Amino acid sequence: MKALEQKILSEGTVLKGDILKVGSFLNQQLDVSFLLEMGKEINRLYEGSEITKILTIEASGIAVAVAAGVVMGKNVVFAKKNKTSNVSGKVLSAKVHSYTHDTDYLITVPEDYIKSGDKILIIDDFLANGKALCGLIDIVNQAGATVAGCTCAIEKGFQGGGDELRRKGYRVESLAVIEKMSPENIEFRK
Amino acid sequence: MKALEQKILSEGTVLKGDILKVGSFLNQQLDVSFLLEMGKEINRLYEGSEITKILTIEASGIAVAVAAGVVMGKNVVFAKKNKTSNVSGKVLSAKVHSYTHDTDYLITVPEDYIKSGDKILIIDDFLANGKALCGLIDIVNQAGATVAGCTCAIEKGFQGGGDELRRKGYRVESLAVIEKMSPENIEFRK
Repeated sequence: MKALEQKILSEGTVLKGDILKVGSFLNQQLDVSFLLEMGKEINRLYEGSEITKILTIEASGIAVAVAAGVVMGKNVVFAKKNKTSNVSGKVLSAKVHSYTHDTDYLITVPEDYIKSGDKILIIDDFLANGKALCGLIDIVNQAGATVAGCTCAIEKGFQGGGDELRRKGYRVESLAVIEKMSPENIEFRK
Repeated sequence: MKALEQKILSEGTVLKGDILKVGSFLNQQLDVSFLLEMGKEINRLYEGSEITKILTIEASGIAVAVAAGVVMGKNVVFAKKNKTSNVSGKVLSAKVHSYTHDTDYLITVPEDYIKSGDKILIIDDFLANGKALCGLIDIVNQAGATVAGCTCAIEKGFQGGGDELRRKGYRVESLAVIEKMSPENIEFRK
C-alpha cells in the first residue's frame, strides 16, 4: 500500500534495536481516516473470501481491526495477553514468546467467540518474528475454525516471521513490508 | 442510550464483586455495527463542542474511541498503562490506583500528541470509581488542553466515580448508567 509506505517514510522513526516508531498514526496516536484507508485496502485484498470474523490482539491491533471491521461489516474479537497461566473461564489459549521482554505470555480468547466453521481474518499492527500471529493461528485451529489470512499493517520482512508463515501455506498480506531499515533509510519490498 | 441498556440486559452477566461481563459486544468480542451506533450517540451528545481530539486508555477503550472517531472524523490518542515508573521519552503521565488489582500504575501519553489549545473528549468503556478518568483528565490539564467531556459506554453509577466528577464540574455523559445490579436484576438510572 503506497500511501502507507509514504506515511512510514514521512512520520516513522527508526530507533536502535530494529524498532520502528509510528506513534503518530498507528500507535498511541491513531489517524482515524488513515485507519479507514487501511481498512479499505484489507477489504479489497480479501474480497470474496467470505470472512466471518476478524481476530486481533490487544492493544494496538484493536484499532486496525476495528477500522477493517467497519469497512468490511464484520465483528472483531481480540485476544488478551496474560502474564501468568492463571486464566479463569472457558478459554482458548496459546503461549507466545516475547523477544522484546524475553518472557512467555499467554494469549486467551473465550471459547464462545470463535466457532468451528468461522473463517477468520487475523489482523495486527506489526509483524516481526510472527510469534503473536502463530499464537492466534493456534487459537483459530483449536476452535476448529479456518484462517482465511493474516494481515498486518507493517511487516518487518527482514525478521522473517511473515515469510515463515507463507512457507507454511498461510496467506499473509501485509500492507507494507520493510526489507531493510536504519535510522537513515527505510527500504520496502517490491 | 436505550439500545445499549437493552443490549446489557440481553447479553450482560453480573458476577460477584460488582463485575458486569459484556464480553460479547464490548470486551474481547466487539460488535462493530453497535460500536458505530454508540459513536453516533457520542457525536450527537457533543455536537457543536468543537472537539479536536479523542483521548482513551488501552485496551478496551480503544474500540469505542475509534468508532466515535470514525463517526466524528477525529483522531484518537490512547494512554498506555505501565506497571513501573520506568518510562522513557517525553511523556505526560499520571498515577492511577487500580482497586481490582490493588496496585498503582502509571498511564502515559507522548507529549507531542496533546497540545495546549486542544479540546479533548475522553472516552472509555467502563466508569466505576473514576480513577482512570481522573488520570486522563490530569494528563489533559498537564498539556494545557481543555476537557470537553468524559463519555463512557457503561457507568456503574453506584460506585460514585461519575457523580464525583460531575460535582467537580466536568461534563460526564455515559451511554448507560447502572444504578443497581445483582445476578438477578440490572436497574438503570432514569
